[in-house]
Amino acid sequence: MENIIRISYLGPEGTFTEEALLQYAELLYGKKKGLQGEPLIEKMAITTIPEVIKSVDRGEALQGIIPIENSIEGSVNLTQDILTFESEVKIIAEVTIPIRHYLIAKPGTKIKQIKKIISHPHATAQCRIYLKTNFPECEIIAANSTAEAVKKIVSQDSASAAIGTKISAELYGLEIIAGDIEDNKENKTRFVIIGNHIAPRTGHDKTSIVCFLKKDKPGSLFNILKEFAERNINLTRLESRPAKKDLGDYVFMIDMDGHLHDKIIYDAIESLRNKVYLVKILGSYPTWQNK
Amino acid sequence: MENIIRISYLGPEGTFTEEALLQYAELLYGKKKGLQGEPLIEKMAITTIPEVIKSVDRGEALQGIIPIENSIEGSVNLTQDILTFESEVKIIAEVTIPIRHYLIAKPGTKIKQIKKIISHPHATAQCRIYLKTNFPECEIIAANSTAEAVKKIVSQDSASAAIGTKISAELYGLEIIAGDIEDNKENKTRFVIIGNHIAPRTGHDKTSIVCFLKKDKPGSLFNILKEFAERNINLTRLESRPAKKDLGDYVFMIDMDGHLHDKIIYDAIESLRNKVYLVKILGSYPTWQNK
Repeated sequence: MENIIRISYLGPEGTFTEEALLQYAELLYGKKKGLQGEPLIEKMAITTIPEVIKSVDRGEALQGIIPIENSIEGSVNLTQDILTFESEVKIIAEVTIPIRHYLIAKPGTKIKQIKKIISHPHATAQCRIYLKTNFPECEIIAANSTAEAVKKIVSQDSASAAIGTKISAELYGLEIIAGDIEDNKENKTRFVIIGNHIAPRTGHDKTSIVCFLKKDKPGSLFNILKEFAERNINLTRLESRPAKKDLGDYVFMIDMDGHLHDKIIYDAIESLRNKVYLVKILGSYPTWQNK
Repeated sequence: MENIIRISYLGPEGTFTEEALLQYAELLYGKKKGLQGEPLIEKMAITTIPEVIKSVDRGEALQGIIPIENSIEGSVNLTQDILTFESEVKIIAEVTIPIRHYLIAKPGTKIKQIKKIISHPHATAQCRIYLKTNFPECEIIAANSTAEAVKKIVSQDSASAAIGTKISAELYGLEIIAGDIEDNKENKTRFVIIGNHIAPRTGHDKTSIVCFLKKDKPGSLFNILKEFAERNINLTRLESRPAKKDLGDYVFMIDMDGHLHDKIIYDAIESLRNKVYLVKILGSYPTWQNK
């Protein structure tokens, strides 16, 4: 019998993070269920990114899932900062999903009836052209998440619609009035799954690290990258961020192709340790393939 | 007689962007006024970042101001993407301000009366510990901006308070119930002022560029940075972002110390042009000193 894995996620129910969690679950188990037909994952909704991360640090959940790049429901910087400065969890997997917005209302609502549109400010911003074209006169009302917006529709009259996810419309028995209403069809969010271990090597992996630098002197970043260039290691993402004062002046966040257990990756990181104040391994994990 | 400069900003009135604009105006003119005592800057509030940028492209405003890093009211990625892909404006100055949140209510409101707290979801997230400690039972209501939240207080009863800026409390004649309620006292936002020219060299400048790369091959970033390291040019910020498909696979956004009209900066960028698909100069501008 399989053990049920408890996974915390940035809630409430019906957010993009839950959608990413469902994709991850399918990757792990497909249609497989427990002996009694029970799901093999127990989902635990948590309202803030720091608390999702800490639920794994405290062992209340075995794994957690949070947005890390280009999300509309959580701050990317917040995820990176908590992983860097305030937690010992590791990234064990990643999931990237397209951000598709839906206009959701009570069943039977006609477009011309709609006078108010509720959503998270970032979601309404991402559907700006659609709203301007189709609902130039509508009042735009803010919600704390797209899921909260959709939930509110249940108690409103048919003059209201929400912008939210497909799964949230299903969750509350509401109707999708219009789909794919986002202005930018290329918009995607990358989520990371966190746990307490380094994920095993699969042969198509990524490694994420943070380098802490004591002094922001010319060439310091160049010297870091030299270790990777000399070994022909491909960097997939790089970002500099200010550090907390007592931990140096700058941190560089680097994603690279390869696993920590690949000799060249391990060697590059070992050489790096002599050049910088501190290297922190955020994790090695399989590259998301469903792109 | 001085000409009045029209500057567009991410509104509505009372946002952090307006606060940054006031700091910029003081830097430009100090207490100086026109001959009739009129202000030398005409502020023009615009509701979205793309429209602020386009107002300068279209000549409706001479300059514009928008958040570019770590803002709670605009998406940083959005600013960078519009500057990179959809505009010809240049960054001509920068302003960095600390993000201070205030609890604002009608004059005479007592803390124990407050039952509802209104703000932008990011602002409430940034005051999470304060709210949890002092208002564990309060309902948290979302608004599209901190300024909208404060404005709403005018028409509410004294059971409501908003989280917003100091200038928005003054704007609506409201009272500050508590100040500096943000969890992280180090939180800052960097704003850029955009215009249609390269700002003159002052001797303490920064230059921002974007490099478009055709292929994400190992060492490509290293080869870019080599041009700067060899010339002892200090990079203050670096970020990789996915490019729009037809413009290559990746873009690297680089900020460096120095002005485009400094010979070593110019030479480095000229060498770079032979190595990458395209270099776009976002601007050269005085480094913000009031840090």
